[in-house]
Amino acid sequence: MHIDILTLFPEMFSGVMDESIMKRAKEKGAFTYNTVNFREYTDNKHQKVDDYPYGGGAGLVLTPQPIFDAVEQTKSKQQSNPRVVLMCPQGEPYSQKKAEELSKEDHLIFLCGHYEGYDERVRQELVTDEISIGDYVLTGGELGAMVVIDSVVRLLPDVLGNEQSAPQDSFSNGLLEHPHYTRPREFRGHKVPDVLLSGNHAKIDEWRHYQSLKRTFLRRPDLLRDRELTSKERKWLDDWK
Amino acid sequence: MHIDILTLFPEMFSGVMDESIMKRAKEKGAFTYNTVNFREYTDNKHQKVDDYPYGGGAGLVLTPQPIFDAVEQTKSKQQSNPRVVLMCPQGEPYSQKKAEELSKEDHLIFLCGHYEGYDERVRQELVTDEISIGDYVLTGGELGAMVVIDSVVRLLPDVLGNEQSAPQDSFSNGLLEHPHYTRPREFRGHKVPDVLLSGNHAKIDEWRHYQSLKRTFLRRPDLLRDRELTSKERKWLDDWK
Repeated sequence: MHIDILTLFPEMFSGVMDESIMKRAKEKGAFTYNTVNFREYTDNKHQKVDDYPYGGGAGLVLTPQPIFDAVEQTKSKQQSNPRVVLMCPQGEPYSQKKAEELSKEDHLIFLCGHYEGYDERVRQELVTDEISIGDYVLTGGELGAMVVIDSVVRLLPDVLGNEQSAPQDSFSNGLLEHPHYTRPREFRGHKVPDVLLSGNHAKIDEWRHYQSLKRTFLRRPDLLRDRELTSKERKWLDDWK
Repeated sequence: MHIDILTLFPEMFSGVMDESIMKRAKEKGAFTYNTVNFREYTDNKHQKVDDYPYGGGAGLVLTPQPIFDAVEQTKSKQQSNPRVVLMCPQGEPYSQKKAEELSKEDHLIFLCGHYEGYDERVRQELVTDEISIGDYVLTGGELGAMVVIDSVVRLLPDVLGNEQSAPQDSFSNGLLEHPHYTRPREFRGHKVPDVLLSGNHAKIDEWRHYQSLKRTFLRRPDLLRDRELTSKERKWLDDWK
């Protein structure tokens, strides 16, 4: 997979893209990436990339020309037909399903605005996907792009070792994860639940399933709305209600 | 505000924390931050901070000791009673309201795990808030912490100039933002809507309100669920349905 990131702040990406799993994934050849400062594509003699909005109002709006030119040149370099992802609060709420979908692509272009909005013609003509990582306001699209890239890259073949790719990843079975305990058995007066020390794997599985459902019920009942409950799950839920 | 970030990957934060608005906010004295590598606090002679989970299963779990010691030393340095925020998929879904709440604190500690889960005793004894930035799986809590910090810091006094602090920030009025247009009037055959060039501000406001509601209706009907609609909004919605 190749990833191009269009941004006015390419330096923001270095820490995240050059550490930990991302670093290993690059070294293994799972993906390559490139940042493109679209300010370098502006026709404006003062290097401006934004301007006042038609119709008035506060805030500046990114002009279409530098973004169109940067995306087109980036596409032609790769001779590909990439997804062009716009990071914006008006986008589709990001999900694990979308991460899986994007992880199957060969080439992704991310478009990160800063402060201002985008000229609507960017949305209409260039963009294939608009993504929002959540209902909160960030200073720019860069962090959103990093979040999407991190969640996609970890799904690429051979990126995660067995140790990290826990089969009970949150959301993969539709429930929040159960509590985890490790050594020591007692820490500052707090003990590990006996069942986890019992060696009885059927009981341990049942305890984890129960805790997982209970945590989801208490914290995120919205996740249970479309779940097909087993008879055991239905019984537990009836008890809690 | 002072922010402490407990992480095994402090280098991940440099790009994001030292650029753009964050950089300016630090220079203006709006906040200070410090990263703490909690591996430095482990009693383990091999510098280990994780161990196998009781009860079996894939993945490693962060042990409580280094995290307890790092948090306690960080608290005592500041002589404060900070919120201790755990970044995790089981947390409360992050929202703009939560960002506003956190922006009123003097001291925040963020706890970022990587790959593995946390020993449950960390949750029970140390943590005041558990936050998830969305329903997708990331390789660690670091990006989540950056997202929360960015959204909080931009709300601190004097951080945003007037130009950036658009009063129609997404979510602040409960609707998605309307389309924006800037120069040129025509770009590759696509024209700016006439109403925005009309100079009639009542009409422009109405057009923006209409577009904003329509975009929300089409993309995020969930945001309209609890909205008290005006009679005009109700009429528009009835037309679209």
